[in-house]
Amino acid sequence: MTERFTFTLLGTDGGARLGRIGTPRGPIRTPAFMPVGTAATVKAIYTDQLEAAGTDIVLANTYHLMLRPGAERVARLGGLHRFMRWKGPIITDSGGFQVMSLSKLRKITDAGVTFQSHIDGSTHTLTPERAVEIQCLLGSDIQMQLDECVALPATPAETQVAVDRSLAWGERGKRAFAQALEEGRAMPGQVLFGIVQGGIDAQLRRRSADALVALGFSGYAVGGLAVGETQQAMLDTLELTVRRLPADKPRYLMGVGTPVDLIESVARGADMFDCVLPTRSGRHGLAFTWAGKVNLKNARHADDPEPLDPASPCPAARDYSRAYLHHLVKSEEYLGAMLLSWANVSFYQQLMEAMRAAIAEGRFAAWSTETKARLGATGTRSGP
Amino acid sequence: MTERFTFTLLGTDGGARLGRIGTPRGPIRTPAFMPVGTAATVKAIYTDQLEAAGTDIVLANTYHLMLRPGAERVARLGGLHRFMRWKGPIITDSGGFQVMSLSKLRKITDAGVTFQSHIDGSTHTLTPERAVEIQCLLGSDIQMQLDECVALPATPAETQVAVDRSLAWGERGKRAFAQALEEGRAMPGQVLFGIVQGGIDAQLRRRSADALVALGFSGYAVGGLAVGETQQAMLDTLELTVRRLPADKPRYLMGVGTPVDLIESVARGADMFDCVLPTRSGRHGLAFTWAGKVNLKNARHADDPEPLDPASPCPAARDYSRAYLHHLVKSEEYLGAMLLSWANVSFYQQLMEAMRAAIAEGRFAAWSTETKARLGATGTRSGP
Repeated sequence: MTERFTFTLLGTDGGARLGRIGTPRGPIRTPAFMPVGTAATVKAIYTDQLEAAGTDIVLANTYHLMLRPGAERVARLGGLHRFMRWKGPIITDSGGFQVMSLSKLRKITDAGVTFQSHIDGSTHTLTPERAVEIQCLLGSDIQMQLDECVALPATPAETQVAVDRSLAWGERGKRAFAQALEEGRAMPGQVLFGIVQGGIDAQLRRRSADALVALGFSGYAVGGLAVGETQQAMLDTLELTVRRLPADKPRYLMGVGTPVDLIESVARGADMFDCVLPTRSGRHGLAFTWAGKVNLKNARHADDPEPLDPASPCPAARDYSRAYLHHLVKSEEYLGAMLLSWANVSFYQQLMEAMRAAIAEGRFAAWSTETKARLGATGTRSGP
Repeated sequence: MTERFTFTLLGTDGGARLGRIGTPRGPIRTPAFMPVGTAATVKAIYTDQLEAAGTDIVLANTYHLMLRPGAERVARLGGLHRFMRWKGPIITDSGGFQVMSLSKLRKITDAGVTFQSHIDGSTHTLTPERAVEIQCLLGSDIQMQLDECVALPATPAETQVAVDRSLAWGERGKRAFAQALEEGRAMPGQVLFGIVQGGIDAQLRRRSADALVALGFSGYAVGGLAVGETQQAMLDTLELTVRRLPADKPRYLMGVGTPVDLIESVARGADMFDCVLPTRSGRHGLAFTWAGKVNLKNARHADDPEPLDPASPCPAARDYSRAYLHHLVKSEEYLGAMLLSWANVSFYQQLMEAMRAAIAEGRFAAWSTETKARLGATGTRSGP
């Protein structure tokens, strides 16, 4: 671990950015898609398949891991990388979003959030300091500050409270992370990102972004989107937020999204994405391809000898007939979820690689128009 | 497909036999364990993992495949090998056993068996001729005759009826298979095995075996065992049955079994085995190792950094900590079932390889004593 955390902007094309994040565990090519490994495994996929698919970094969920198997236990076992056998960089969220969406009986104060585990009902507390501590124990390369993410629709007052609290927590998180670095609980090259909140309120978003930038983070996430608003509202909010963020730091749009969401968000200057969509869709019989979504539950695939994509570099998409995939999905076989999750993560990585190539060659707008037509998608949204 | 079906007895050690089955799709080293790919997939395992684990042949279930996706459909798609992407030989059972154990409202006559699908309640008929036809459509390399397998305990009269019916069905199956070969629906090198029935009644078993041998098959299965009788009754029945079978044909003990069952059965002259135990156990958090069974649900593994077996050639057993496997099993993650199924099939193949080596070196008895002690098993039985 000698390389420090760096971000190099290699080029721009309109609002789209081509970049490289350097980390002690290897580079991250941006725009980057980060498959979600909630419980220290990207569901139904081997880590060597992730790597071969072109994955540079995976995301893991602090909320899930603090509850099971527990952050202290992961630390005793040598950290999350060794635990799940992933050599590349790992980003962890702070747990804030899952506390809101999964836990029971949560109570939020300025101090932090107390909640009951959705697994066994046990009581836990997350503070900005504890969120950093947990992520240090996990050994993640990119930590996220604890934030408060309000569900939409929210009143302006509710959104403002969440923005102020998230800012205060960002400041405390930054202080806690600096101390962890000093004490050797975080390693050189590991970093903490701040999270912009503010719902779809332009003024609040700007205030949140400006204040976070004033604090100074190694990267900035746009949180609190893809939680029920329209795609246009999401993109508008992303666009106005990104304008306030420094060009020399990576920008991470949390929990997004569909292939078209990614294209539109890259066009507006986002560099990093995570979403359960490719893996969750794969477990539900849905494949992403360059010709759009394919629902393998549909009986029309029952006799189709063609693969999902004969030109795919991914064996799951290239070597198995749609008829077989249909059969596996209908039979609820593990292999159906395995193959489709693999194919989908591979497709997402192909999409990112195509975007990076288009930006490098200064043809992102034309590529975007053509690709959105190919995908046949009209911007239908899926939740985070 | 040039090689014909052959069986070469390479050596014996006591009752144990070392052999080689030649097929147009590649050789099968015996004693052989055949992982069960019920619905055209060995659950949660990629075919290249099966191959790397030392699997020469897999089993698929006629009953399941005739119901879904349908034998005619598999034929249109180029056969089962292409469908499931397995290049080696495939053995298919005749459906008789699953009709008894899974279907509803079955009605058995001398003509055949009519039953309702456990999937959608639709009505189907299996006759000895249709069982051969289906297996020809699937393109299996080793077919099994339709038989009637009675559940134990059964009255002598019930068992006798099943023996007589199975023999008559064996004769009809043989005729149907010969016709399929003539008509080119079966390929040269593909074969049909007969099945000995008779419960645990020595006299019926001998009669069944003698009559089957008089008919003449390319191999002989011992069916109707591992259905509730004691291990000793199973082994005694196997032993007396095998004595009536010709030495120059392979012997297949259907649906068996635990590692100790396999060792004891090889000692008594069985050459081929299939069992869902390694894969089903894997899906339930149970691992087979040289030091016995490991229940990964057990909390004592939560902090164990050691793998299942550091000396295993299988990455699943060698490269992942028991703590991680415990976590995956407790979290009901796909990867838990994937890794443990893979590790278990690999262990079974290591066990077969060790048996083959011991027979080749004339030390099977000593190896057996030592290995059973290592396995710590006292012959506890698991169902088929």
